[in-house]
Amino acid sequence: MLEERQHNTLILDRIRSPEDLKTLSYEELERLAIEIRDFLLGSLSKTGGHLASNLGIVELTFAIHRSFDAAIDKIIWDVGHQAYVHKIITGRRDQFQDLRKIKGLSGFPKAKENKMDCFDTGHSSTSVSAAIGLASARDIKKESHHVVTVVGDGSMTGGMIFEALNNAGEQGKAVIVILNDNGISISPSVGGLSKYLERIKKNPLYVKEKSNLSLELNNFCSERPLKKQMSIPPIRCNVKYTSMFGDFFEELGFHYIGPIDGHDLNKLMEGLEHAKSIHGPVIVHVCTRKGKGYKYAEEKPSKYHGVSPFNIETGEPLIRNETGYSGVFGREIIRLGEIEPKLVVITAAMKEGTGINEFSQKYPNRFFDVGIAEQHAATFAAGLAAGGLKPVFAVYSTFLQRAYDQIIHDIARQKLNVVFAIDRAGIVGEDGETHQGIYDISYLRHIPNMSIMSPADYRELSEMLKYAVLMHEGPIAIRYPRGVGREKLMNSDSIIYPKSYIAREGKDLTIVALGKMVETVLNVAELLKIKGISAEVINARFVKPLDTITIFESVRKTGNLVTIEDNTIIGGFGEGILDALNSEGIVVNIKIIGFPDEFIEQGTIEQIFNKYKMNEKGIENSIFEFLNKSASLKI
Amino acid sequence: MLEERQHNTLILDRIRSPEDLKTLSYEELERLAIEIRDFLLGSLSKTGGHLASNLGIVELTFAIHRSFDAAIDKIIWDVGHQAYVHKIITGRRDQFQDLRKIKGLSGFPKAKENKMDCFDTGHSSTSVSAAIGLASARDIKKESHHVVTVVGDGSMTGGMIFEALNNAGEQGKAVIVILNDNGISISPSVGGLSKYLERIKKNPLYVKEKSNLSLELNNFCSERPLKKQMSIPPIRCNVKYTSMFGDFFEELGFHYIGPIDGHDLNKLMEGLEHAKSIHGPVIVHVCTRKGKGYKYAEEKPSKYHGVSPFNIETGEPLIRNETGYSGVFGREIIRLGEIEPKLVVITAAMKEGTGINEFSQKYPNRFFDVGIAEQHAATFAAGLAAGGLKPVFAVYSTFLQRAYDQIIHDIARQKLNVVFAIDRAGIVGEDGETHQGIYDISYLRHIPNMSIMSPADYRELSEMLKYAVLMHEGPIAIRYPRGVGREKLMNSDSIIYPKSYIAREGKDLTIVALGKMVETVLNVAELLKIKGISAEVINARFVKPLDTITIFESVRKTGNLVTIEDNTIIGGFGEGILDALNSEGIVVNIKIIGFPDEFIEQGTIEQIFNKYKMNEKGIENSIFEFLNKSASLKI
Repeated sequence: MLEERQHNTLILDRIRSPEDLKTLSYEELERLAIEIRDFLLGSLSKTGGHLASNLGIVELTFAIHRSFDAAIDKIIWDVGHQAYVHKIITGRRDQFQDLRKIKGLSGFPKAKENKMDCFDTGHSSTSVSAAIGLASARDIKKESHHVVTVVGDGSMTGGMIFEALNNAGEQGKAVIVILNDNGISISPSVGGLSKYLERIKKNPLYVKEKSNLSLELNNFCSERPLKKQMSIPPIRCNVKYTSMFGDFFEELGFHYIGPIDGHDLNKLMEGLEHAKSIHGPVIVHVCTRKGKGYKYAEEKPSKYHGVSPFNIETGEPLIRNETGYSGVFGREIIRLGEIEPKLVVITAAMKEGTGINEFSQKYPNRFFDVGIAEQHAATFAAGLAAGGLKPVFAVYSTFLQRAYDQIIHDIARQKLNVVFAIDRAGIVGEDGETHQGIYDISYLRHIPNMSIMSPADYRELSEMLKYAVLMHEGPIAIRYPRGVGREKLMNSDSIIYPKSYIAREGKDLTIVALGKMVETVLNVAELLKIKGISAEVINARFVKPLDTITIFESVRKTGNLVTIEDNTIIGGFGEGILDALNSEGIVVNIKIIGFPDEFIEQGTIEQIFNKYKMNEKGIENSIFEFLNKSASLKI
Repeated sequence: MLEERQHNTLILDRIRSPEDLKTLSYEELERLAIEIRDFLLGSLSKTGGHLASNLGIVELTFAIHRSFDAAIDKIIWDVGHQAYVHKIITGRRDQFQDLRKIKGLSGFPKAKENKMDCFDTGHSSTSVSAAIGLASARDIKKESHHVVTVVGDGSMTGGMIFEALNNAGEQGKAVIVILNDNGISISPSVGGLSKYLERIKKNPLYVKEKSNLSLELNNFCSERPLKKQMSIPPIRCNVKYTSMFGDFFEELGFHYIGPIDGHDLNKLMEGLEHAKSIHGPVIVHVCTRKGKGYKYAEEKPSKYHGVSPFNIETGEPLIRNETGYSGVFGREIIRLGEIEPKLVVITAAMKEGTGINEFSQKYPNRFFDVGIAEQHAATFAAGLAAGGLKPVFAVYSTFLQRAYDQIIHDIARQKLNVVFAIDRAGIVGEDGETHQGIYDISYLRHIPNMSIMSPADYRELSEMLKYAVLMHEGPIAIRYPRGVGREKLMNSDSIIYPKSYIAREGKDLTIVALGKMVETVLNVAELLKIKGISAEVINARFVKPLDTITIFESVRKTGNLVTIEDNTIIGGFGEGILDALNSEGIVVNIKIIGFPDEFIEQGTIEQIFNKYKMNEKGIENSIFEFLNKSASLKI
């Protein structure tokens, strides 16, 4: 592909909307595919973004936009990071320079960005549920349009998609589920269903000709004009074409079409036209190659799933990102694995992101990647704990939302020894609204038996993990941010449950800070000092239970309290402190700093913190304002 | 069965543990089955409880306890309301008089009650995840015992069980999943998979002989002593026995055994012994009749799923329960259905419980029972709303926990018009710890764009529903309690977003009460009046947004504030008010009354409210204490 790179965009320049695509010949489309892959490489090598999945889905996106009318039909992109080609075709090519930047083009479908993005996505496995909803609305309103979802095979491990398939199979509404099967989610796909798909693809009938059956259908369908096809009894089409494969989906009530070579435009068009002719739920099983056309990405699709800016020629990133908190977790968990034979580690398809690749290689029997299946992951952890082991579930804050019920019902209620290593807590940056990890404190704090910690530096993460795995009884969460921190921010002692740490003594004001905010606040304290304000800084370490002794003592001394956390304020850490003070009868005005009650858009982490006045300057100003108001209240 | 009733318990009296079961002949077991059904009828007709599912599972429970050793093997009962027979056999027969009562026998498996309850359940579809966890722990610890789950076909619609099956199929760990298929969850089971199971059962091979294949296996297996069977290559057994049925499960990597007549002890034993011989995940598909042996329950299994005390001869309840808030919702939703053609109603297998049976009959095209699938239900609602309809999701508070992520990610983020009718909010009573609805405020309040209301009486529920369906833009929840309330508690005006209502004026103290607590608090205000305290009572109506104007004004007047809610205090309504006052700079001590940070056990609703001092007397005392402390603080 490197050889084939092609720096003109003669055809791409003519594409302003899906309509333009419909005028092209197949040869021109093939040319356009090359131009678009070239454009993606050129653009993403500068901005970063989701590369491999979009390289793999070029032809399929063409076929979809030729078969359907995105202005009328509803096309939903499950997860949504594979919608770049769709964005290019729907007139957003010029915005790719600002991809995933603040105020820029989203890396996910966004209805507010374009009316051809009919349903926003971000988390996996939601699209079929949404599709059935849209299809039901269509039928009730007696409209007629297609509803199409594009789902990666990785998303098929998420239970809610099974709930949806099961429901769709019964309801019988016309929805077209395009299963984009590349054998990879972020890591290689796992699960029995994934192996089943693998078997279909290895079936000699598909391998040998990739099209015997397809051709047959082609003849069958092409003999009839499109109008006519609509009246073909679905069952006939189905029996003729599919009964060799796809029992799994057929048992659920779906018509199955496939497998189809996802880089063969002719076959794709045939398959989609066939799907359109069926009056019920259809699965179109399309096999694509993740990273298609860029050899490095084809060879290592996981590495090129989400990229930071890279050198196209060598495939290497321009700046080597530090592994940050995830890396520290990854190192420490291996060390603990040596000490504690009961330690087992679980991930829900996030092995790379959570830094546990090395652990998985060193202790394959004590490592479990359950796929995108957070509900199962949590209750599976409960089972492991009930069986006497010490499971650590390494998971992103935003994805743990899926396991909220299981945390309450299966883990906390039975007070089982499960450790939650919550990565990407707080602001995640470029992934934006759907992925910010600013709710975990609020959704965990009210769960009985749950303990919650947050480290201010790498050393604290190590110590907390050690405490959680080796000492703690009952469920406990450690939340830590995306990106880098300091190795050792303070000369602190060990982690003692549930003690906070006075990181700096002062007399005018108490600031209780959580996790990564401690570093910021220590700097703010220096700024305040210049202005003659002596701030005491408490590194809270524990959200729950709160170290009320230390906090109350400090507040009694200083008479002023500011709390700061990188979580939404509602239900968060600050409200917890406020409630604790109030219960104790300590009547004092508090400034709670955290994120407001709104969805937080994309941007660099720094930009977001600046925007919400959670940077040093912003916090300093907030504190000044607060102290002034407080003083006037006292008068 | 009525004729067959049999009031002696000659054999049952000999059963103190599963070991006693193993000494019985098949004839004695059949006799015991009659005695146990008789005992269940006699006992549950007095106490109430889950009847039909337990009548259906008698023989299967016998077979399980004969095939496995519950002291060593791990047996998990999915959902768990079908574990009564297991409880009888494991020495808890004497406690049935206190079934589901405070401090009495739980209606669900509870490890703290008996060591043969190895994993607590309550919500559906969790057992396979737990089983894989226990099996993995077993293998890592190099132990050898069986791990068995008993799953109803209704639980098969829950996505997390698919996540677990998919994972189990890949991991290949030895777990035995007994699918107890009676075609009913609480309402008849739904979904493509359910139809698939139906097709298996209708297969002539099963219908005609119910045992041709089974017999074959019987001969095959019985020729070998048990020890030998363990070494039968699993694939051989599997191919020989199962390939006619069960493709769905086999595609996922399971061995499938069945279908087996679940009332034929011989066949059940054969099937389970076969399952034990297989070194990998197995599904044993058992067909039972819900309500077996009691004609009324066989005829109307849904009606006899959960019963209150009833007359055995007539099958009629001794006291006819009022339909309460659910009934009001059911009536009002029909009225709104007439006015608003865009209104559609969704339930996740709770049609009866949520009072929407009549709506489903009147508007079958605008009604959707998606099965036990709350995640899908929420995002399906999002799709319906994105398609221009006005979906109302009628759901119990505790089950909506499963859709937490979908509410944030799919509904609130897109600000879609979804109405959540949250039934069973607050204390549900006899179902106990796993089912209390005391978290919904805490898990919804911090979600941006979400509005939350709670009615103080039936009329307010009607008005709120009308407002939510006809007027509101964006997601909105109405939480209301289990059981009965007052038709009209006060001469209030209409619901105006987001206004509270001053239900009683006063000058010494402001009490802000939510939902059903308003009635209690109005009575408390009368008690306080006798003691010379003039309480102002605000019926909050809105949890979010808060009517801070009214609340602040009242607090400024009275100088004392008590909040009261039937939710956990952490992250709840009171904390929200505290935060609002603090943000406004109103420094006042507040008493927040609600449930403490612990799991709330079973008992009648009244008993629970008494226990937690949330009854009139308890609240009055709390307020006195608070006012005294407040006064001393002021000095």
